Amino acid sequence: MTKPLRIALAGLGTVGAGVVKLLDANAALIERRAGRAIEITAVSARDRTRDRGVDLSRFAWIDDTADLARRDDVDVVVELVGGSDGPALTLARATIAGGKSFVTANKAMIAHHGLELATAAEAKGVALKYEAAVAGGIPVIKGLREGAAANEIDHVFGILNGTCNYILSTMESPSVSGHGRDFGDVLAEAQALGYAEADPSFDIDGVDAAHKLSILASLAFGATIDFDSVAITGIRHVKAADIAEAAALGYKIRLVGLGEATSKGLFQRVHPCLVPVDHPLAHVTGSLNAVVAEGNYVGRLLFQGRGAGEGPTASAVVADLIDIARGETGPAFGMPVASLAHLPAAPAGERRGRAYLRFTVVDKPGVLAELTAAMRDAGVSIESLIQRGPAADGGVLIVLVTHDGPEASVAHALEKLEGSPSLIGAPMWMHILDS
Amino acid sequence: MTKPLRIALAGLGTVGAGVVKLLDANAALIERRAGRAIEITAVSARDRTRDRGVDLSRFAWIDDTADLARRDDVDVVVELVGGSDGPALTLARATIAGGKSFVTANKAMIAHHGLELATAAEAKGVALKYEAAVAGGIPVIKGLREGAAANEIDHVFGILNGTCNYILSTMESPSVSGHGRDFGDVLAEAQALGYAEADPSFDIDGVDAAHKLSILASLAFGATIDFDSVAITGIRHVKAADIAEAAALGYKIRLVGLGEATSKGLFQRVHPCLVPVDHPLAHVTGSLNAVVAEGNYVGRLLFQGRGAGEGPTASAVVADLIDIARGETGPAFGMPVASLAHLPAAPAGERRGRAYLRFTVVDKPGVLAELTAAMRDAGVSIESLIQRGPAADGGVLIVLVTHDGPEASVAHALEKLEGSPSLIGAPMWMHILDS
Repeated sequence: MTKPLRIALAGLGTVGAGVVKLLDANAALIERRAGRAIEITAVSARDRTRDRGVDLSRFAWIDDTADLARRDDVDVVVELVGGSDGPALTLARATIAGGKSFVTANKAMIAHHGLELATAAEAKGVALKYEAAVAGGIPVIKGLREGAAANEIDHVFGILNGTCNYILSTMESPSVSGHGRDFGDVLAEAQALGYAEADPSFDIDGVDAAHKLSILASLAFGATIDFDSVAITGIRHVKAADIAEAAALGYKIRLVGLGEATSKGLFQRVHPCLVPVDHPLAHVTGSLNAVVAEGNYVGRLLFQGRGAGEGPTASAVVADLIDIARGETGPAFGMPVASLAHLPAAPAGERRGRAYLRFTVVDKPGVLAELTAAMRDAGVSIESLIQRGPAADGGVLIVLVTHDGPEASVAHALEKLEGSPSLIGAPMWMHILDS
Repeated sequence: MTKPLRIALAGLGTVGAGVVKLLDANAALIERRAGRAIEITAVSARDRTRDRGVDLSRFAWIDDTADLARRDDVDVVVELVGGSDGPALTLARATIAGGKSFVTANKAMIAHHGLELATAAEAKGVALKYEAAVAGGIPVIKGLREGAAANEIDHVFGILNGTCNYILSTMESPSVSGHGRDFGDVLAEAQALGYAEADPSFDIDGVDAAHKLSILASLAFGATIDFDSVAITGIRHVKAADIAEAAALGYKIRLVGLGEATSKGLFQRVHPCLVPVDHPLAHVTGSLNAVVAEGNYVGRLLFQGRGAGEGPTASAVVADLIDIARGETGPAFGMPVASLAHLPAAPAGERRGRAYLRFTVVDKPGVLAELTAAMRDAGVSIESLIQRGPAADGGVLIVLVTHDGPEASVAHALEKLEGSPSLIGAPMWMHILDS
C-alpha cells in the first residue's frame, strides 16, 4: 500500500473550500487514479471562525501560513491565498526551500516570480505546478506543456478572463429598450451575481488576462516569462454602440490575449478585439474561457471550458496533485529554466492588421474630411466607414474599418487627431482578429 | 548529459514519414522540452524502395518488424502499422515483453487488446502510450487521463472521425444545383482528395469512431474497454434531404460518439445525430475532431483540433515520446488495470431523448394516418411533422421530430411499420443531441 500524499492548504476562500469538497466527494476515484490517497493534513487561513460549509476540524489549523512549509506531516503545499507577493510568495519560497512540492492557482505570483520559483524547485528536485492559474479548469497548461510539446508554436491566443467575457457577451443581449446594454450597467449586474469583484479593475483593465497570457506565452514559445512587456488595454471603454457596430459588420467583441513569436522577438498584447462571428472565439460566451494554440505540426488546437469558479479551479488544483502523486512531474515551464529562451519584446508598430476605429465627433461640417484626411496622411487605407446621425447628446458616431496595414500608421493618424476640437472623448481603437 | 531516447519506428506510411520529419524539423526544441534528444535508430516497413520524402539511410532498416522489439539500441518502439491484430499486435506484445516502452496510433488494437497490453506493460514497468489513437493531434487522452483526473465524468461525446465529418459538413454546402449535395457524390470527392480511403467502410460505417469512443469511455469512467457493446450506425444512409430538413429545424447532422456512465452501466453509441446549430459541435466542420467531457467539478470541457493527417498524428506520437523521455508516464488507462471497473453494458431502450425520423412513403391516401397511428400506439409523442410534396420519383418525404421520450417506444413504432407497403426504403432514425 502506497502512503497517502499529504497536503497542506493555505487559503480557504471559495477555491480552497472547493478543494476540500472535491477531495472529499471524489476521494475513492482520486485514490484509484492517483495510485494513492490524497489527504489534507493541515490548513491555514485568516479567519478560523468563518463557516465555509466544510468540516475543517479534521485538519490541523495553523495560524501562521508560513508554518505549513515546515511541517513534517506535509508533502505538498497548496497555495490559494493570492497576491503576487506577500504571504503567498513567502510561503512558496519556504515550501520549495524546505524540499516540498508546491501547487498554486496564483497567476499574479507565477507571472512575476515564476522563474525564480521554478529555478528553486529544479534545484531542490520538487514540483512547482500551477494548472489552476490559467483558464480555471481547462487543462491548458498541460495541453501546451505536454500535449503540444512536439511543436514549434508561433502564436497562442485566447479569452482568458471570464469576468470580461461575461460583460462583453452580456452587452450583446438586447436590454429592455431593445438595444445592447451599457458597460456600467452590465458590470453592476456582474458584481451583484458574483462574476465581478467589488474592485473589478484587475479584471476589466486586462491585468489578470495579461498575467495568464505571459504564462501561456512562456510555455508556448519556450521562453522566460515577460509580464512587463505585455501591452494591456481593458474593456472599460467598450460602448454599447461598439457592440452594435461590430455586430453590423459581422463581428463580436472579445478581450483577447495574444502572444506571438516573431523574428523580432516576443509580442504580447491583451486588447479588446473584433472577432468574426464564425470564429471559434465568437462562440465563447458568458464566463467561459478558451485558448487557441497553433503548432507547426499539430495545426490549430482549441481548448474551451469554465475559466473560474470553485469547481473548475479546484479540479485543476487536484489534477496537479494527482500528477504529483503519480510522480508525473517535471520542469514547471516545460523545460529546465536554463533552456528557456530570453526573447526581446517585439514592437507593436511593426505589426500589420485591420483596425476598428470609433469616433464620437461634433455635428458640424468638415469633420469627416478632417478624419479621412488624417487617415490618408498617415497612409491608412479605409475599408468601410459608417456615420450615424446625431444622438440625443448631439454627438455623431463615425466607425471606420481599415484595410490590412501597419499598426504604426493607425497610431500615427490617431496622434494627429489628438486634441482636435472636432472629437468628443477619445477614439476607440480595436484590432480585428483575422487569424 | 542525459542519453538520447532511442526509437524504433514500425510503419512508414504518411504518419511514419511525418514522425521522421517532425523529429528532424523540431529536433532542437524537442531536446530542450524532453530534457534529452529523441533519436530514431531503426525503422521497418513493407517496402524498402518507396520514396517517402525523408532520408532513411541514417537508420537501421529491419526487414522483420517484430525484430525491432529485440534490438539493444532501442528504448521505445513506435507502431504505425495499423490493424487490430497481425504484425502490430505481435510487435506490441514482443516490445512490452522485452521490457521496452510502446507508443502507437492504433485505435483498433487498443480498443480490442488495450487491456491485455496495459496489464503486460504494468507487469514490466514500461509505458504504453496511444495519444495519437484518438482525435489525432488533440491531446484528449492526456486531457481525460490527467487534466480531468479529479472528476467523476458522467458523459463524454464527440466528433471522432474526420472523414465522416468532412462528408457531412460538405453535404451542407450548396451544390451547383443550389441544393445540398448527396452522400455518394461527396464521398467520391473525399476519396479523390485523400480524406477518405479507397475502402471507406471503417470510417463511414462508424467502426473507427467506435474504436475511439471505447477508449475515451474507458479513460473517462475508469472502466475496462468494452468495444463490443458500442451500438454503431454509420452515415451511409444520411441523404441530402436529411441535411436540408435538419437545417430547416435548426440543426446540423454530425456523427457523434457518445459514452455515458449510467446507474445501469456503460452506454456507448456511435450514431448520426442532430446537433443544434448553436452547440459547439455544430461549428466543427471539415476534417476537424472535437471531444466534450463533463466532469462533476470542472463542468464541460471541449477539446478541438485536427483529428487526422500526417502532422497532427505525428505531433501526438512525439508528445508521447517526450512524456517517456521526461519520465512522465504511468498506467495506460489512468489507473492500474486492477482498479478499472467492469461496467455492464447499459441497454439503449431505457434511454430517453428526442428523435428525428425520416420516411419516404408512397403517394396515396392514408399513409400519414398509418404513420401517426403507429407512433400513437407505441406511445411516441410528435413535436413537429413536415410532409413535402412528391419528388420526381414519386416518393413523398415525411419528417417527424418526437418529444422527449423513451427510445424503446420509437423502436417499437418502427418495428410496427416494418414491411409496410406504404414505405419506400427503410426509415431514417437519428437522435437529437440535447446535452
